[in-house]
Amino acid sequence: MAEAGGDDGRCVRLSADRAQALLADVDTLLFDCDGVLWRGETAGPGAPEALTALRARGKRLGFVTNNSSKTREAYAEKLKRLGFGGPAGPGAGLEVFRTAYCAALYLRQRLEGGGVPAKAYVLGSQALAAELEAVGIASVGVGPEPLQGAGPGDWLAEPLEPGVGAVVVGFDPHFSYAKLTKAVRYLQQPGCLLVGTNMDNRLPLEGGSYIAGTGCLVRAVEMAAQRQAEIIGKPSRFIFDCVAKEFGLNPDRTVMVGDRLDTDILLGVTCGLKTILTLTGVSSLEDVKGNQQSDCSSRNKMVPDFYVDSIADLIPALED
Amino acid sequence: MAEAGGDDGRCVRLSADRAQALLADVDTLLFDCDGVLWRGETAGPGAPEALTALRARGKRLGFVTNNSSKTREAYAEKLKRLGFGGPAGPGAGLEVFRTAYCAALYLRQRLEGGGVPAKAYVLGSQALAAELEAVGIASVGVGPEPLQGAGPGDWLAEPLEPGVGAVVVGFDPHFSYAKLTKAVRYLQQPGCLLVGTNMDNRLPLEGGSYIAGTGCLVRAVEMAAQRQAEIIGKPSRFIFDCVAKEFGLNPDRTVMVGDRLDTDILLGVTCGLKTILTLTGVSSLEDVKGNQQSDCSSRNKMVPDFYVDSIADLIPALED
Repeated sequence: MAEAGGDDGRCVRLSADRAQALLADVDTLLFDCDGVLWRGETAGPGAPEALTALRARGKRLGFVTNNSSKTREAYAEKLKRLGFGGPAGPGAGLEVFRTAYCAALYLRQRLEGGGVPAKAYVLGSQALAAELEAVGIASVGVGPEPLQGAGPGDWLAEPLEPGVGAVVVGFDPHFSYAKLTKAVRYLQQPGCLLVGTNMDNRLPLEGGSYIAGTGCLVRAVEMAAQRQAEIIGKPSRFIFDCVAKEFGLNPDRTVMVGDRLDTDILLGVTCGLKTILTLTGVSSLEDVKGNQQSDCSSRNKMVPDFYVDSIADLIPALED
Repeated sequence: MAEAGGDDGRCVRLSADRAQALLADVDTLLFDCDGVLWRGETAGPGAPEALTALRARGKRLGFVTNNSSKTREAYAEKLKRLGFGGPAGPGAGLEVFRTAYCAALYLRQRLEGGGVPAKAYVLGSQALAAELEAVGIASVGVGPEPLQGAGPGDWLAEPLEPGVGAVVVGFDPHFSYAKLTKAVRYLQQPGCLLVGTNMDNRLPLEGGSYIAGTGCLVRAVEMAAQRQAEIIGKPSRFIFDCVAKEFGLNPDRTVMVGDRLDTDILLGVTCGLKTILTLTGVSSLEDVKGNQQSDCSSRNKMVPDFYVDSIADLIPALED
């Protein structure tokens, strides 16, 4: 698969000419970060230059990530530190759309007018709790929660906080059986929502290593509660709706750039965006081929319009 | 569905006459415990009497449970305490087939001759570790494991025990993200097995309450490791093979009695046993009907030969 992808005219290599034509029709580019812009603390070669050139051409940039363990501001600070630019000062986080922030917006919508004070049981980080509090949702449960007592009777006798209207599951390094038990008890209460920030199975780190992702924790809660969580992150369209509302986006004039077919590219296809796969992360051209040749319609959808070896391939199209 | 079940002649009410005919052709009855013999610490009405009558008729009894948090002996003691009889003394546990015991036998088979000292990382109880040690498999990891350090780098730098050839997931009230991380790291080592004692999503308690079951923990590990666990418990046939070997069973002359279509009855059908559903637990006749009418072959299999309101219904067939 050297030049073009499969027989269906999709997954075409984005040459400088094609990139120029594409960018002429585009106002906004949304980027996944890890595996696209950087790995761990190292920016991809040419990636900062590509973004600088896009900004110089007046393109609006947005960063859409399933990571829930940093605030928008901390993320914006990392973008700056690694050379990707962006606004400074009080509006520093405005280009960053993270699941924690969008989960907070979603919960505010769902919980408001419910007559009860908005409160969530959070299996997640302090940053997730902070995003919730910023929109007026109190949180309980962040941090370690030791197992109390000797057996199931004691675990079920642990007091619950009154007024919890949602269980929110994000990346939680303090996840434990005790927390799982408590989450399930809240979920037995009438009307209690179950929201997961994302379903990523792994969080990739530098050097090819990885740790368990939020999806593993969401799945454990779902299985115990016998309920399906509402997922905020990619490929759920909620995170795009959130960006579209804040930016006033026209999907026709928007590109999604990512390294994963099952999150970034699927999100783009679902929301009617143009899509570019970069081969610097999780998915390969072999994966694309598998999806194109599959007889399964859900896999057929996970095919990008274009691919690049890395986003540095955009630079020639941006030079005069 | 008063007398008989669906159109296929299965799921027939086990009248005294039918029970007499059935029991004449049967040497061994295998029972699930929770929801069949008892709930929590309360024996079902007539259940001890039914088992006493079966023993008096010379039937061999076996108890097959997915519970992994007690030893065989502790289980036998509970059977005695609630009036279900059974052997005493050193052979007290011989009628009890639990996933912990069968997991130990399975691992001994798989790990022996591997050239490495048999050692397992156990997400489970002290009882599970004890069953493993009884067959010569050392275990590490039982009990609480606090999260060390501030972030992923520290978590991945935690030392691993040498020689771990399997990760075994059972019911673990000390399950945590730290343990999940460690399990995934062991599973990245070549040849490391992943074994789950069972896939039950919930552990039912008295009064209709429940806690999260082992399946939730197995699923989290599977998702992070991107591997499927080998499951020991019902409906996997390994647990029956284990009973059949120890008892020298003829499947044709064996009955499986249980309250769950998706574990007990499916196990019986898969292994060629006769099957009786008791309506004192999880599954209902409505569930049976749904399976009979489904166009899905995996659901069609989950239909018992017979059903009873409770196992006390067997008593009239056992009176002279």
